[in-house]
Amino acid sequence: MSTDRPLKVALFGSGRIGQVHARNIAAHPDLELAWIADPFIEGARTLAAGTGAVAVESADEVFANGDLDAVVIGSPTSTHVDLISRALAQGVAALCEKPIDLDIERALACRNTIEGINAGINTPLMLGFNRRFDPHFAVIQSRVAAGEIGRLEQLTIISRDPAPAPAAYIATSGGIFRDMSIHDLDMARFFVPDIIEVSATGANMFCDYIEEAGDFDSVVITLRGRDGELVTITNSRHSAYGYDQRLEAFGSEGMLSAGNVTPTTVRKYGAAGTEEADAYLPFFLERYAEAYRNELDSFAKAIRSGTACSPGFDDGLQALALANAAEESARSGRAVRIENPVKIGQL
Amino acid sequence: MSTDRPLKVALFGSGRIGQVHARNIAAHPDLELAWIADPFIEGARTLAAGTGAVAVESADEVFANGDLDAVVIGSPTSTHVDLISRALAQGVAALCEKPIDLDIERALACRNTIEGINAGINTPLMLGFNRRFDPHFAVIQSRVAAGEIGRLEQLTIISRDPAPAPAAYIATSGGIFRDMSIHDLDMARFFVPDIIEVSATGANMFCDYIEEAGDFDSVVITLRGRDGELVTITNSRHSAYGYDQRLEAFGSEGMLSAGNVTPTTVRKYGAAGTEEADAYLPFFLERYAEAYRNELDSFAKAIRSGTACSPGFDDGLQALALANAAEESARSGRAVRIENPVKIGQL
Amino acid sequence: MSTDRPLKVALFGSGRIGQVHARNIAAHPDLELAWIADPFIEGARTLAAGTGAVAVESADEVFANGDLDAVVIGSPTSTHVDLISRALAQGVAALCEKPIDLDIERALACRNTIEGINAGINTPLMLGFNRRFDPHFAVIQSRVAAGEIGRLEQLTIISRDPAPAPAAYIATSGGIFRDMSIHDLDMARFFVPDIIEVSATGANMFCDYIEEAGDFDSVVITLRGRDGELVTITNSRHSAYGYDQRLEAFGSEGMLSAGNVTPTTVRKYGAAGTEEADAYLPFFLERYAEAYRNELDSFAKAIRSGTACSPGFDDGLQALALANAAEESARSGRAVRIENPVKIGQL
Amino acid sequence: MSTDRPLKVALFGSGRIGQVHARNIAAHPDLELAWIADPFIEGARTLAAGTGAVAVESADEVFANGDLDAVVIGSPTSTHVDLISRALAQGVAALCEKPIDLDIERALACRNTIEGINAGINTPLMLGFNRRFDPHFAVIQSRVAAGEIGRLEQLTIISRDPAPAPAAYIATSGGIFRDMSIHDLDMARFFVPDIIEVSATGANMFCDYIEEAGDFDSVVITLRGRDGELVTITNSRHSAYGYDQRLEAFGSEGMLSAGNVTPTTVRKYGAAGTEEADAYLPFFLERYAEAYRNELDSFAKAIRSGTACSPGFDDGLQALALANAAEESARSGRAVRIENPVKIGQL
Repeated sequence: MSTDRPLKVALFGSGRIGQVHARNIAAHPDLELAWIADPFIEGARTLAAGTGAVAVESADEVFANGDLDAVVIGSPTSTHVDLISRALAQGVAALCEKPIDLDIERALACRNTIEGINAGINTPLMLGFNRRFDPHFAVIQSRVAAGEIGRLEQLTIISRDPAPAPAAYIATSGGIFRDMSIHDLDMARFFVPDIIEVSATGANMFCDYIEEAGDFDSVVITLRGRDGELVTITNSRHSAYGYDQRLEAFGSEGMLSAGNVTPTTVRKYGAAGTEEADAYLPFFLERYAEAYRNELDSFAKAIRSGTACSPGFDDGLQALALANAAEESARSGRAVRIENPVKIGQL
Repeated sequence: MSTDRPLKVALFGSGRIGQVHARNIAAHPDLELAWIADPFIEGARTLAAGTGAVAVESADEVFANGDLDAVVIGSPTSTHVDLISRALAQGVAALCEKPIDLDIERALACRNTIEGINAGINTPLMLGFNRRFDPHFAVIQSRVAAGEIGRLEQLTIISRDPAPAPAAYIATSGGIFRDMSIHDLDMARFFVPDIIEVSATGANMFCDYIEEAGDFDSVVITLRGRDGELVTITNSRHSAYGYDQRLEAFGSEGMLSAGNVTPTTVRKYGAAGTEEADAYLPFFLERYAEAYRNELDSFAKAIRSGTACSPGFDDGLQALALANAAEESARSGRAVRIENPVKIGQL
Repeated sequence: MSTDRPLKVALFGSGRIGQVHARNIAAHPDLELAWIADPFIEGARTLAAGTGAVAVESADEVFANGDLDAVVIGSPTSTHVDLISRALAQGVAALCEKPIDLDIERALACRNTIEGINAGINTPLMLGFNRRFDPHFAVIQSRVAAGEIGRLEQLTIISRDPAPAPAAYIATSGGIFRDMSIHDLDMARFFVPDIIEVSATGANMFCDYIEEAGDFDSVVITLRGRDGELVTITNSRHSAYGYDQRLEAFGSEGMLSAGNVTPTTVRKYGAAGTEEADAYLPFFLERYAEAYRNELDSFAKAIRSGTACSPGFDDGLQALALANAAEESARSGRAVRIENPVKIGQL
Repeated sequence: MSTDRPLKVALFGSGRIGQVHARNIAAHPDLELAWIADPFIEGARTLAAGTGAVAVESADEVFANGDLDAVVIGSPTSTHVDLISRALAQGVAALCEKPIDLDIERALACRNTIEGINAGINTPLMLGFNRRFDPHFAVIQSRVAAGEIGRLEQLTIISRDPAPAPAAYIATSGGIFRDMSIHDLDMARFFVPDIIEVSATGANMFCDYIEEAGDFDSVVITLRGRDGELVTITNSRHSAYGYDQRLEAFGSEGMLSAGNVTPTTVRKYGAAGTEEADAYLPFFLERYAEAYRNELDSFAKAIRSGTACSPGFDDGLQALALANAAEESARSGRAVRIENPVKIGQL
């Protein structure tokens, strides 16, 4: 790639998450949003209009460009494996939204493909676990890593969506563990990379169409780390008070917590109650806006420096393996031991 | 009992918890601390000196008094079943510290004994799950019961002791589930009386002598309620920042939480950090001081009104059954179904 | 006085504040509530009934008792000077509610009287500025005194009543500065004993009958301490969110603040707002319940130890002088210099 | 101006505040940073290098451009009057940092000049009281204006810098009232536009060179609004815990407060203290970063829509008049009545 011009980036997908990436790429000083690809070409065109990118329909049109430096993959999950493989085969860096695939066999096959490509091994490949770049969580992780609370013993993650996705989305989502909890499972691995046991309990509390789809709307997951750490994840597909994203790291010498985010520090005091804060930021687009920017910046820097991306492909595999184990545990009522699904390599 | 004089109360045990009860009984306008019984007679005498009670060595001396109205049992666990049985056989109301017994078979046998006593059925018998009377938790429970957050879906309980009990205590404690978690299991039942499934995970993170005793120092428990409610309990035998006692009730229409208690509202602001609160109240004697008073008052009122106590004997049995199930789950790696251990009656 | 029995105490006044003192005296292990005096004898009798005290109509009946150790004066302000003088003339310790008198000349004359009594000089005399015994404020004061925030530079006091007193009360209250701000002026002196300048601004914002009485319902006072410290007091006669009692001490090396007090740590989270705390404790009886108990205990200890009380008579004089200066400043629009109204002696 | 291209903007000043504006102008979709003017041409060049602007030395070079749409004036205070006048004479919109001038006579003369220019009356002119655009304060102001807390009765503003400016800056600053308090005086007017009385008290607590310059390092200001509102401003030139910027609006039906801002929601819990938040954002560049962006955006929109800017020239005059009155009050010990310094017009 050229070092005297911004990196030329193609974006796949012009939906909700594609729009986030489009804005961030356009605003990044070292990235140029050159192409936006979407079979729904109107979406691509609308998005391209505000950013100076060229709208195209197919991946072929993207990969035909010899000066393509990187792709950001925000298209449907079913396209991920193919787009990752094509990018890496061409030595083009890739940032792919999670999950790699809902089917871990396809994800593992993709890994083999990449390993077979010389270029693949050395080309930056980042998985879009954006929450690792959230300033609140990232600060805790680095302070824990620096030993501020001694040895990490327990991690508590509470993560609730404001409202369930529509039935059509649920039907193809892969289930709450692979669709929603996977973010929290990766967050657990951000603090405790080696998980050796997964227990999960699921319930149907409020959403008929989720139950009809054979899925849960509420789950609790307990993880055991290699060094004994206990991680608790509590999920719900709804939350009357908005997007609930919290984390507590408990160590031998203290605790660090991150609470929810309000748009301002304003508090209200009245006869009915006092010190009332604003409603929380409504959903992930607002709550993780800064995380998406930081993630993209980290990707850009990895490309420039030629260093491995973190989180990488194998982090995506591990999170998927944990989600599968959680599903199995919730169905069987048994704790599931985790055998490392892949050997940890460059990916 | 006479209604024109305070109720005459005998206290069993002059140790740490006995001292709490002694002070509270002495200060209660409708109770008279008449006797303090402890085989370690010096302890009984010292405690009696400040309260006007008579110190005695044996239970026999207590039960020989014809005008005894009630007993408060704060002696070692192994004495509970016998003292409860004797009190109820005599129609004397009893408030007994948890647990009834470490052995559920002995506890069930005690239940049969009481059922066989006519007087037993109608005599007030309260189990000392004092946290139900903590103002913070009690307010949430009553607001949840009043429907303020809609249908209860998830309950999160975090409960950490400041430091592990000594090895000698651990050896006879019955293990973390029966000794420590049992309070949280009862708190879970305060919100979700009917628990149908228990999963638990235990770990040894920091305390060698607990590990050597075959016990855990850190555990996580997940409960499933009859209506699908999911309860998470996180326990640790230590906490660098003091006694950690928190609860969150998450419902379909909102959430209520109770945080830790500081002695004052004072906050400090300095170069290193801001809004720093005091250290938390150090342990249960301080944290639950008001709960112990409220518990005793509730007991006194139940005696006067002749109504059943809550929590009662069967609440003690149920909590013990849950603790046993948690232990079994942590050892086997399987979720344990709860069959109601006893039929719910007057007790 | 006898040292082998509790101190015999007479209480003047059976109104709202008298009832607080009656309960606290009755519950104090070293005090015996022997007499309650009130010309409204029914009030005295009702209060005496629950405490074992003798109800009397007149002060004469109280002072006729040779074994009287102490008086607590909670009767109307106009009686304070006379009762203080009579108690001290007889060598009987006195705890008197603020203010000494609304007329500083009468208060100064009272001082002269006391100084003329040999016994008076050595008899404990405490002024009832109960807030000095509030745990939240007292902790800050002692931490500031210990140098935790370096040199004290600015003090911010916000103090608002929940609702204005009735018109009849306002008419004889002496005005907001002498009736309400006087507590905050004493609090200022708790931190900055030597005040050299007072500026005040008054306004009529919401209460017609206060305005008709020629009084203010809202005021701001600025004080300058001898070492340059700046103190700001903000008062209002009403507050929609309940009793508002806060303080911030700002020093060269940090700040300490004390917020309002809620009955529990419970917080509510809903669609309209999050982290909502309970309503604050409604008024001074609840907010300062512990302060009243601590104050009485300090009084009892001063009697037993024969040491001077703090706050004492001169603290009452100083606060009254500051209130007068504030009134003068608010009327004249000029800062008023404070000449020390009395030489500081034993009183 | 052209409506089919971004507005061409010239920036005066490449110092600290100029750099803020440069970044914001460059990032604004409707603004083009065309010129940066600074006699210290190296500063202008460095700043221009990253933004695509042309660096020039003199204002003449700026005003010689026929397609100039707007100027942002971040150069020294002494240049403000001249640059404002030249811009408006040419019909070029201006956003000028506060204050207009340290000398109110020069500011009034500038007003007359502008009124004499036909174009001046209709050309957008904004004063850079950026805090009006701070999301925390702006939300409170709009909620108060919407009646959420009833009638506004008291406003409490606390504003402390992290550390005093250097002696050289202090010497030409115009004093704490005109240099620092002026922001808080404008904030007071944001809520209570018509101030009729000013009282102030100043002190020298910690900084010798400020005292030697005849200036105060600590002040308290009380304002009275036309409808009786009482405003308290507490200022200090230092703060051990960082930049302290808080506000409380107290009304007949409740209160709204805005606290300080931390970079994250992270809290720490340890043996020494609990719930400790991060250090606050260090100073105005960080604390008001969003306010500066919002301010610029409001300016751009006013230009496009042809509507009057708020805050405008007269807001600058009023704040300066209040600062002068505060100085006078602090020196004389008398409350100063405010006669409206100018008739409120388009400016």
